[in-house]
Amino acid sequence: MAAVSIRGLGEVPLIARLARRLGGAGKGRGVLAGIGDDAAVLRSSGGAPLLLACDMLVEGVHFTRRLPARWIGWKALAVNLSDIAAMAGTPRWAVVSLGLPPSTPVRFVDGLYDGLGACARRFATAIVGGDTVRAPQVVVDVAILGTAGPRGPVLRRGARPGDALFVTGRLGGSLASGRHARFTPRVREAQALAARLPVHAMMDLSDGLASDLWQLARASRAALRVEAARLPVSRAGKTVYHALMDGEDFELLFAVPAWAAARVPTRLGACPVTRIGEVRARGARVELQTRHGRIQTLIPSGFRHF
Amino acid sequence: MAAVSIRGLGEVPLIARLARRLGGAGKGRGVLAGIGDDAAVLRSSGGAPLLLACDMLVEGVHFTRRLPARWIGWKALAVNLSDIAAMAGTPRWAVVSLGLPPSTPVRFVDGLYDGLGACARRFATAIVGGDTVRAPQVVVDVAILGTAGPRGPVLRRGARPGDALFVTGRLGGSLASGRHARFTPRVREAQALAARLPVHAMMDLSDGLASDLWQLARASRAALRVEAARLPVSRAGKTVYHALMDGEDFELLFAVPAWAAARVPTRLGACPVTRIGEVRARGARVELQTRHGRIQTLIPSGFRHF
Repeated sequence: MAAVSIRGLGEVPLIARLARRLGGAGKGRGVLAGIGDDAAVLRSSGGAPLLLACDMLVEGVHFTRRLPARWIGWKALAVNLSDIAAMAGTPRWAVVSLGLPPSTPVRFVDGLYDGLGACARRFATAIVGGDTVRAPQVVVDVAILGTAGPRGPVLRRGARPGDALFVTGRLGGSLASGRHARFTPRVREAQALAARLPVHAMMDLSDGLASDLWQLARASRAALRVEAARLPVSRAGKTVYHALMDGEDFELLFAVPAWAAARVPTRLGACPVTRIGEVRARGARVELQTRHGRIQTLIPSGFRHF
Repeated sequence: MAAVSIRGLGEVPLIARLARRLGGAGKGRGVLAGIGDDAAVLRSSGGAPLLLACDMLVEGVHFTRRLPARWIGWKALAVNLSDIAAMAGTPRWAVVSLGLPPSTPVRFVDGLYDGLGACARRFATAIVGGDTVRAPQVVVDVAILGTAGPRGPVLRRGARPGDALFVTGRLGGSLASGRHARFTPRVREAQALAARLPVHAMMDLSDGLASDLWQLARASRAALRVEAARLPVSRAGKTVYHALMDGEDFELLFAVPAWAAARVPTRLGACPVTRIGEVRARGARVELQTRHGRIQTLIPSGFRHF
């Protein structure tokens, strides 16, 4: 019998398996939230809880060298900032592990660091260390450390029946338009929302709205319904289908109680904020109300990692 | 003219270049020590300073699949624990980025996580999150977060003329013997040393003693001299040459003032501690006193990353 490969397993079951496999090693003193949210929430001695996350970009999978090195560097940090934004936190420090083929032009590495540096300065995050190793292709892995906001971190698991669902920005076509590497992580938008509203749950959109709605539904054990007519489709995304299925939007998906829905601004600076649906009941499920009023169960079929 | 590649540059100049390139993005509020030590030292609000580090292992560069998956997992965390040990800190939490080919057997991933979990439990470190992505070969990058000990972190830059130099364990042959993947990071030994002695400088040995002595000499701007006759050569290392040149010992190199040298224990549990030399003057230099009494300048020619 052939050995089972992870291709046959899929990412969500793989991560669940790894978390089970770690057992007690996945928990520990000071762990307020661990595997399964955008960032881990950790209780250090005194002060705000810490937020810790990491994201790996691999050449040929997440980017090619046709993308300018500067944007690869920007993206490598920005995807991590997006994880901190998803918790309504403040990014503080990052470390960068860089795998490089020996043949890599110095100019490419310079460009990559210029992009990392530009993104770091823009979001007041210090790059404080890292590791540089040989690899068959370029691999950039950033780990980020931040702090939770004054109202504490916003987790994925807090959505409740009756909540209204919102997204920032416009969805779809991120890979086609190049936005996936040049996007602005919603750090300030998330902080502004959490400061003025009781945000029950929040996450960033990385695998595609349909897939990420399922993540929120599972974490909150809640049935979500979104309306096709309300989805903010980006110009590059063109259709509701792409707004639902395309990955790497790096916008925010969040839930607020119904009474607060009217207080959610329609814009935060230049960033639109759109009500897309609601939380209807207990039990993980995701439904789409079509433009013709039909209710369809959405399949979590966004970006497949394996 | 051909573009200059990083092969022509080497790792130390590459890292110096990246640090310069980052400029202000490498510094920031709360950064007590940044790029260039075993871990970054960060001032969070209240409590002990935080220690943050990362290390990337790449299949075909740092391990092959002939190594049992369990030991790849153990090593991936242990090299990071060694960075925290080098600061005399306490490891607390880790995140794991994992790049995997879709064809990877589930059994391999299970083994890798068993190794990570075993190492995490042994050193009371919680694995609190991570990222799992597709890659052409296995890549494991761990970022670790710890806290400094009650006397603060021990940096590389504090060695002073007159200090005595020590190493833990026995050196050389780590790759040949398989120890490179099964080693015990010197977390407890470092804590015990820092608790009872004024350790001026410390680092872990990863690139080979000769190369790492140069790192300490540069960081402390100090001239170091070690005696060939004193070096604790491991059974697998066999010769002084291998003790100086072989990488991945993951032992500690540290400096204490001369008056405290006699108080350094010759063993910590099962781990020998050996006086190997001294700090002689200001100005980065590393010398070897041969068995015949000759003084040679050591060349920093340990493990080459590129």
